[in-house]
Parts: sequence; C-alpha cells; structure tokens
Amino acid sequence: MSSFPPFTRLAASLPDHVPFVGPEAIERERGTSFAARIGANESGFGPSPRVIEAMQASAGDMWKYCDPENYDLRSAIADQLGLDVEMVVVGEGVDGLLNLAVRMFAEPGEAVVTSLGAYPTFNFHVTGFGAKLVTVPYRDYREDLVALAEAANANNARIVYLANPDNPMGTWCEADAVEKFLAEINPHTLVILDEAYCELAPASAIPAIAPLRPNIIRMRSFSKAYGLAGIRCGYAFGPAELIRPFERVRTHYGVNRMAQVAALAAFADQAYLSEVVGLVAAGRERITQIAEENGLKALPSATNFVAVDCGADGVFAQKVLDNLIAQGIFVRKPVARGLDKFIRVSVGLDHELDLLAEALPKALATARI
Amino acid sequence: MSSFPPFTRLAASLPDHVPFVGPEAIERERGTSFAARIGANESGFGPSPRVIEAMQASAGDMWKYCDPENYDLRSAIADQLGLDVEMVVVGEGVDGLLNLAVRMFAEPGEAVVTSLGAYPTFNFHVTGFGAKLVTVPYRDYREDLVALAEAANANNARIVYLANPDNPMGTWCEADAVEKFLAEINPHTLVILDEAYCELAPASAIPAIAPLRPNIIRMRSFSKAYGLAGIRCGYAFGPAELIRPFERVRTHYGVNRMAQVAALAAFADQAYLSEVVGLVAAGRERITQIAEENGLKALPSATNFVAVDCGADGVFAQKVLDNLIAQGIFVRKPVARGLDKFIRVSVGLDHELDLLAEALPKALATARI
Repeated sequence: MSSFPPFTRLAASLPDHVPFVGPEAIERERGTSFAARIGANESGFGPSPRVIEAMQASAGDMWKYCDPENYDLRSAIADQLGLDVEMVVVGEGVDGLLNLAVRMFAEPGEAVVTSLGAYPTFNFHVTGFGAKLVTVPYRDYREDLVALAEAANANNARIVYLANPDNPMGTWCEADAVEKFLAEINPHTLVILDEAYCELAPASAIPAIAPLRPNIIRMRSFSKAYGLAGIRCGYAFGPAELIRPFERVRTHYGVNRMAQVAALAAFADQAYLSEVVGLVAAGRERITQIAEENGLKALPSATNFVAVDCGADGVFAQKVLDNLIAQGIFVRKPVARGLDKFIRVSVGLDHELDLLAEALPKALATARI
Repeated sequence: MSSFPPFTRLAASLPDHVPFVGPEAIERERGTSFAARIGANESGFGPSPRVIEAMQASAGDMWKYCDPENYDLRSAIADQLGLDVEMVVVGEGVDGLLNLAVRMFAEPGEAVVTSLGAYPTFNFHVTGFGAKLVTVPYRDYREDLVALAEAANANNARIVYLANPDNPMGTWCEADAVEKFLAEINPHTLVILDEAYCELAPASAIPAIAPLRPNIIRMRSFSKAYGLAGIRCGYAFGPAELIRPFERVRTHYGVNRMAQVAALAAFADQAYLSEVVGLVAAGRERITQIAEENGLKALPSATNFVAVDCGADGVFAQKVLDNLIAQGIFVRKPVARGLDKFIRVSVGLDHELDLLAEALPKALATARI
C-alpha cells in the first residue's frame, strides 16, 4: 500500500480482512440464486402489506431529503415505550447505532467486553475505533452473565455488550437475570443491551422499560420481526443524558426517507407483527423437528433462527454447511470455538423449510464420508 | 451532563450545537407545510419515472439485507467511468463517505483545510474526529484555489476539501484551474474533490477521470441531478490503494436495498438525466430573472441553485429570508461573513418559482422597513 497520503495510525493498523460475505456474493460465485434464503436471520414473511403500500406510495417523494430529526418515527417509538422523544435516537440499523455508541464511549486502548463468538459487527466497530476487545466464553451456549459482569468490572471496561436474545445461538436470559447483571456492572461502564430480536422472545426475557438506568442503552431493530432488514433502521433508547449526545456524531441525514416511511408504517401495524411472531414460532418448531428427524439436537430459540448441533466438531459442521450451500440452501454458522459445531438456520417460508428437510440428510451423509 | 458512564475525551469535547435544521422542523414549528420547497438543493423534478417504478416493484423485497458489497451499483459506476470496480466505493450519500474519509485520513489534532463557509457537514466530521479545521476565505464568491493550496501546504494538512461546483455559492472552477490546484498539493495530503453537482456543470469544469492521482478521492451523489436526495446514496472513486481501505471502517450493510435499486435504475436512465439538466438550466435562468426584476444580482451557477445577492448586509438578507419563510417559501442562506448577504434559491417547479416571483418583492420591502 502506498504511504502517500498516509492513513491515520489507527486506520493503518486495522486489518484488511472483514467478515461480511453476503448471500449475493456466494450467488455471484455459484452463478445461480439460492433456492432457500435462510441464513441471515431475515424474515421471509416480509414486511406488512401496509408497509409495502406505504413504500410504494412514497417512492415519488424520494427527491426530498429525509427529516434529519427522524421526528415522527422517534415520537411513535417514544409513545409506545412511555418515554420522552429525546430518550430515543433512530439510526441506520443497530449496526449504525453500535458504530456511534462505540465511537462515543470506547476510549482508544481501553477495554470493551463481549462474549466470544457474539455479534462480529460490534467487534468490528470496537477494533475500528481502537479499543481493546475482551471476550468471555459462552456457558452452555448462553451468554454468561456472571462472567461478563466480572470481566467488565475487572477490566474497568468502557462498554459491555449483551445481546438478549442472543445471536448467533438464539438462546436468551430471563429478565430477572439480566436485571441482576445490570445491577452488578460498575456505573461508569456503559451497557449496550442489543434487543434486535426482542419482539420474538417470551415476555419474561425482556426487562421493563422503566426506570431507565443511567448507564444503559438498549437497541432495537426493524430488521427482524418487522421484516425490514433491507431498509436499515433501528433505534436506541436510554436516559436523555446518554441519547442526546448522539447528535454530536451521527450523520443527521443518514436514515433515508424510505426507511422512515417503512418503519413508521411497520410500527403502526402491530397486528401484523403478532401474526409474524406466531409464524416464526411455528417455523422454529419445524426446524427443530427437521433436526430431530436427522438425529440432531436444536437449541431452544427466542429469535427467528435455530442453532442446530451437527453432533460432531466444527470441521464436520462446516462440511454440512458447504453441502447445504451446494444444494442451493443459504445458511450460516457460528465460527467461535465451542459454538462452531452448530449451523444456524433462519425461519423461512414453508417451501424453504421443505427444501431444508430434503437437503439435510444428504448434507449429513456427505459430511460423514 | 452525568459523567457516568464517561464519554471519550473527544466526544466530551464536542459542541452540542449542530447546524442541521430540516424544512420539516420549520414546518412543525409553523404548523403548516411550505408552499415552495426550494431551499435544500433538492430536485423537485424528482427521480426518473423508471426509478419510481423500480422502487415500487422492489418494495416487497425489503425483508432482505442489501448486498454489502454494493456490487451491481459499483460495477455500473466503474463501467461508466472506465475504472475497475475496486476503485469505486458506494456510501450513504457523500455525507457518509466524508465521515469515512475524514476518519481514515484526518489524524486527531492535525490540520484539515477547507473554504470558510463551505460544506458544514464536512466540517462537522472534521471536528467530530478531532482534527483541526483551517479555513480560507472565498475570493469573488469562488473557492480560492491558490489560497487553498497554500494553506494546505503551509499547514501540512492531512486533507484539503474542494467542492466543484461549489456549495453554497453555485460557482465553479474550470477543469484546468482544478488540475493546476491538484498539482500544487503536497502528495501526502489527501484531496477530497466533492463533485455532488458535476452532472449540472459545464463539461469544461470537470477534470478528466484518467489518470487517477495517488492522493485524490472524488465524490459524487444521486441526491442532486438524479433527484434522489431522500435515498442517501453517493459514491467515491480513486486509486484502489485509497478506496479499498474503506472496507476497514465502513458499515457494510449501510447503503439500504432501496437505495441500491433506485441508484442503479437512475444511473441507467441517462436520457432522463439529460432532460433534468436542461430543466435545471432553465430554472437557474428564471431565478436570475426574478432576482433582476427586483434589482438584485444573481451569481452564475453550475448547480441546481442560485445565490442571490440581496444587495446589503447579512442582517438584511436574513430578514429577506425570514419573510420568504413566513410566506411559505423554504429557502436557505450562507452564514459565513462575506457570503451572508446572499440567499440561496434551489431550482424548483414552475409553480414554486411563480410563488418566489410573487413573494420576493414583499420580502424585500419588509426587510427595508
């Protein structure tokens, strides 16, 4: 690489490798489309028909910049949560909000704590802003709240990250355990509670909104249950003292107008959301049944995907995955040691899960050769 | 503000004030919509009908994440420019790309050079990443290329920013002058050449694409001539050594799927673009004529807006602007000393410019009281 003009010391030190391979890249390489797209925890049920109508009706308005304050959407969210509008910030998905939170709280060189094998995009931002990742292993395929709190406090962490429900395992912690964890974290450590899957979880897993705690930001998404992964819209909430300063760093026109329209319409159609929650629960059962029919165990899930234990090691699970992809079925898998014997299957439409049921025996047989 | 959890030293030092008031915020305050939306350099002509159709047809696909590589769009852009695909990066508008470029090249504490009164969002990013802004006054309402180059070299700048055509004045430099400027900049200084308005400028103002220079990144947008401000999509190009490292810091799923669809369709309809370029040129003439009918002078413009000299000082121009807004006409104005006697009027539809013609005499008369 040319050294003129020079990158910042931090940018120059960043790894070139980034772990983001989309299904489109695999499709380009294979020269054909996937028959089942059940690997990225998207919602094949799609957004509400009302959301689609709203997007179509607003297409002609896209010459206008979006409202930089995201006012209507923030107001709707704040109303539902019983918060003031300045306790809510809307961003370009949870990914975009994680970027901003890490930038504002993770002092370069200091510790940030997460689980080993948890969300790689969070780690990408931590490394990208020069902070030091400290990881804690999962325990029984769940995030280990006791060990996370200990590591956060022992390392004087600037941030500790917890996804509940968890990705990539789909497991969850009950609200009282989360509350206990939150109470144990030093007040000068920011807790990011990523609740991207919260609408799909049992109510008992989600802590109450009130009272807001001075060191906690919770993040939610329109990508999962609302079926709008492609639109990039998420929100964060917490005390105004933590949320208002996002104004100092966020790209004010970053959430596009179509995302604002779609998210607002999605949020307004809670009946559709309930319907999807039911469909996702049925899909999880179907995936679990398919796993069991093949002699495999699946983890209980509070998300729109199921982690299936392929019954051997990571090399074996990778072979299963490769063969499923060769059969036109897009799935992904955890890569961290201890989690890598699983593949992760997103709830898809019936015909996609039929394809999975058909393909899995062959994939397992091939992997066993 | 609570000091627990603490912000980074940099985030704690950032100003709370951010200069981004959207027309929607003014409308909320006034309790009524603007009759003419001609203040944000949007294109009231809208996107191509084919783009609208493409967006409508893809609304049901928004449950899928976008292609994180933006491959199809980057390929189309690269083809048109005669570049390789790895010389092009797509981002969340020029705003998003400026964020990344500043983050990668502006070492905290070091100098970044721009014109006094030029694009505030660039300055926002420079301050936000802790670099030091050095500003150079405009000369005859044009960016002063000689002084910019001198300031960049004298301050050992990490970045020098030039918008050509310029915002907020609409003026432009000819390509040979830009080339001369580029040649004078130290090779260890990154030049960001913001060409958001290039499709609306005379061909003589735009330097050739080849050869790519080792220290120059050029940025372009779908927000202006393509009529897609609300969709947040822009692109940057330069040598692969400068462009590939954007992978280290960009939010890979940041450009949403609708933006990819819209931008690709917009780029494919160059006939519509030509039509808009003609309509914008006619609109600039009409605004100039309205100014002259009121005894005012307008600057020649290579953009989709015209800077109108209100003939007195900044206080007077602010009064004119306030009265236009009170009459339901959204316009904006430069705020930097020396430029602040202008108001900036975007090319709108005929009926919007009719409203301007009607309202301006009254606004001037009121300001003169």
